[in-house]
Amino acid sequence: MRGEIIGVGTELLLGQIANTNAQYISDKLALEGVSIFYHQAVGDNQDRIKQVLSIAHLRSEIIVLTGGLGPTDDDLTRESVADFLNRKLELDANALRKLEQFFAGYGREMPSNNRKQVMLIEGGRFLENPRGTAPGQYVEADGRHYFLLPGPPTELRAMVTDQVIPIIRSIVGQQMTIRSRVLRLFGIGESAMELEISDILKNQANPTVAPLASEGEVTLRITAKAGSENEAYALIDPVEAQLRQRLGKYIYGIDDEILPVAVGKRLSARGQTVSLVESCTGGLLASMITDIPGSSGYFKQSWVTYDNEAKSAQLGVPKELLLTHGAVSEECARSMAEGARSRSGSDWAISITGIAGPGGATQEKPVGLVYIAVAGPDGTTAKEFRFRGDRQQIRIRAAKNALYSLVKRL
Amino acid sequence: MRGEIIGVGTELLLGQIANTNAQYISDKLALEGVSIFYHQAVGDNQDRIKQVLSIAHLRSEIIVLTGGLGPTDDDLTRESVADFLNRKLELDANALRKLEQFFAGYGREMPSNNRKQVMLIEGGRFLENPRGTAPGQYVEADGRHYFLLPGPPTELRAMVTDQVIPIIRSIVGQQMTIRSRVLRLFGIGESAMELEISDILKNQANPTVAPLASEGEVTLRITAKAGSENEAYALIDPVEAQLRQRLGKYIYGIDDEILPVAVGKRLSARGQTVSLVESCTGGLLASMITDIPGSSGYFKQSWVTYDNEAKSAQLGVPKELLLTHGAVSEECARSMAEGARSRSGSDWAISITGIAGPGGATQEKPVGLVYIAVAGPDGTTAKEFRFRGDRQQIRIRAAKNALYSLVKRL
Repeated sequence: MRGEIIGVGTELLLGQIANTNAQYISDKLALEGVSIFYHQAVGDNQDRIKQVLSIAHLRSEIIVLTGGLGPTDDDLTRESVADFLNRKLELDANALRKLEQFFAGYGREMPSNNRKQVMLIEGGRFLENPRGTAPGQYVEADGRHYFLLPGPPTELRAMVTDQVIPIIRSIVGQQMTIRSRVLRLFGIGESAMELEISDILKNQANPTVAPLASEGEVTLRITAKAGSENEAYALIDPVEAQLRQRLGKYIYGIDDEILPVAVGKRLSARGQTVSLVESCTGGLLASMITDIPGSSGYFKQSWVTYDNEAKSAQLGVPKELLLTHGAVSEECARSMAEGARSRSGSDWAISITGIAGPGGATQEKPVGLVYIAVAGPDGTTAKEFRFRGDRQQIRIRAAKNALYSLVKRL
Repeated sequence: MRGEIIGVGTELLLGQIANTNAQYISDKLALEGVSIFYHQAVGDNQDRIKQVLSIAHLRSEIIVLTGGLGPTDDDLTRESVADFLNRKLELDANALRKLEQFFAGYGREMPSNNRKQVMLIEGGRFLENPRGTAPGQYVEADGRHYFLLPGPPTELRAMVTDQVIPIIRSIVGQQMTIRSRVLRLFGIGESAMELEISDILKNQANPTVAPLASEGEVTLRITAKAGSENEAYALIDPVEAQLRQRLGKYIYGIDDEILPVAVGKRLSARGQTVSLVESCTGGLLASMITDIPGSSGYFKQSWVTYDNEAKSAQLGVPKELLLTHGAVSEECARSMAEGARSRSGSDWAISITGIAGPGGATQEKPVGLVYIAVAGPDGTTAKEFRFRGDRQQIRIRAAKNALYSLVKRL
């Protein structure tokens, strides 16, 4: 079954927002065995919306439209689909009552222009939207299945899982499913990794193996299409084994086990805790760790010490050390980590000190120079890094490498 | 001049990544007066790539393709465009030498499959890619201008600004330009804002006014198309004045002046400093502030105190206070902020304590309950918030409201 996603909204074409809805829906529909061959995006213009519909109609059975269901005059998805299919739009009394109740819930009267949101395409049915005022719609015509969904991701995502997927299952049946496993690597570049497995990448069919790089991290996504979930994983397993044989030492996690999760898993398993002290990453590392639910079980506390004063006062970094070696030095990183460990009483402590730029660089200490230290029960390790990129990239790479430095010790 | 962006890569259709390249290019081309009417995305399949090219060819003069320029067999953009235009692909000796030097720079020999990256479309020319192995290409055919760019955003973005834009300027001339101004609001919801200005939103033409909401923040983007930058802003100014008349008290910044920038600007102007202490946001607030270049000028330090022990030891929050009121209380927030201010010696201190969930809630203290305090030269203010959403949303909203709480005091 071939699917296609059409994003409607001039904000997409102006580059105000990225089309994350297309990404989300593609991911979910793939799991149902729908092959998404095309994405389209078009502005709030009825003629052009109808044009992209006529293209989709020729090549796809499942056509999901996102956006353009709002109450304002530039919301034209509903009208365009009805017009394209030569169907009427009829006011739905039931939906109107629900919508009026929605506004009543906020103690407001429903503005008249919201009425257009409950105009149903002839022969279609509404898809409930508990989070917003715009219900979705589903309509079938000449073997094509049209889903109209609102643009706001928080509204759309719940509707996809709760309402679109069940309908698609009834259409597709259980004939096919697509499953993926993501291998997460660290400490190797994308090109180097591809060279290690170029033969596997060349001779792939089902499952497919797709490398992806992002900010110093690399993932390999193994995707299999089969008649059942079990069959899919039976195809994936041997390929994973083959990849692990070549790249095992770089693989730290699978699927959603990103670095902060890997750190948490390992610490929880040992019943140990970690504390942090950050300079150039300014809280980014702490934020990554505490973004994970349950992190309070292994994360004790952290310091962001931007100025030397704080490094001495809060962590006991000797003033002489700062004078002789400077704040951006391996010695300072070690002292910060050991200070954090002793003052927090945690089993482990990670420190990061460096120059994220654009300012603060000197001839000997360029932008991107970062020292990361890990203090633990069995002593302190430290490493120098020289990251390329802008301030944000350097901060992200430093934080990820700090996480990986701890993973390697655990 | 009409433009269209074609994303090539199965990873887009599998939902592995969002098409942020289309967003970036759309934004940049709009500034050059190019009207982007369509986005397309297609997988690594030559027939389907040629199909989307034939569609774009009929309706757009400027056609930008992203991705599919890599060395592997599934990189087919180059081949597909050449085939679609009935042009040969010829190995370019010059580019080959450069590419071999690129690899030599990493002390590696160039793998043979990289040779395809320097195959130039007949009549076209290369676009330099200093950050990667895949040069871009530009070729004109029957009044259509094709730009082929590599997929990795860090490589693509530099190429767009340094090479694509200059070529497009020479094509478009200075006939038209599009300029925008973004008004940043806080403390009002999107629907409430739209009701305030519904008449303006209804009767817009040039400039257009587009509301956009994201995680508790709202922006209004005023976009004008005109013969020159000055004319464009002459159209924008009166509309901005009109919007400020209605919504002025919610507007805290324009364009790129996001909350942490607004905080920094105001602190720098007063020559003052801020410190932070975070509980449920776990470093997110510090990270937002230090993400801004130059933040070391006004940001001194911060603490993340997850457990009560740390709150007392690091900030001197009285143990009795924690016992009687608990860590998630206005009293604790005030004590944390005042402790952070006195111990850091900074002019201002912000504290956040709350329950981000999913765990940690009690009957009296539900997930989303957050207290934010601001301690300053003229005393301490504190406020209770009850945020909805998941852990990530609650953390983001708490951090943004903390920033806004300080902005209001400055």
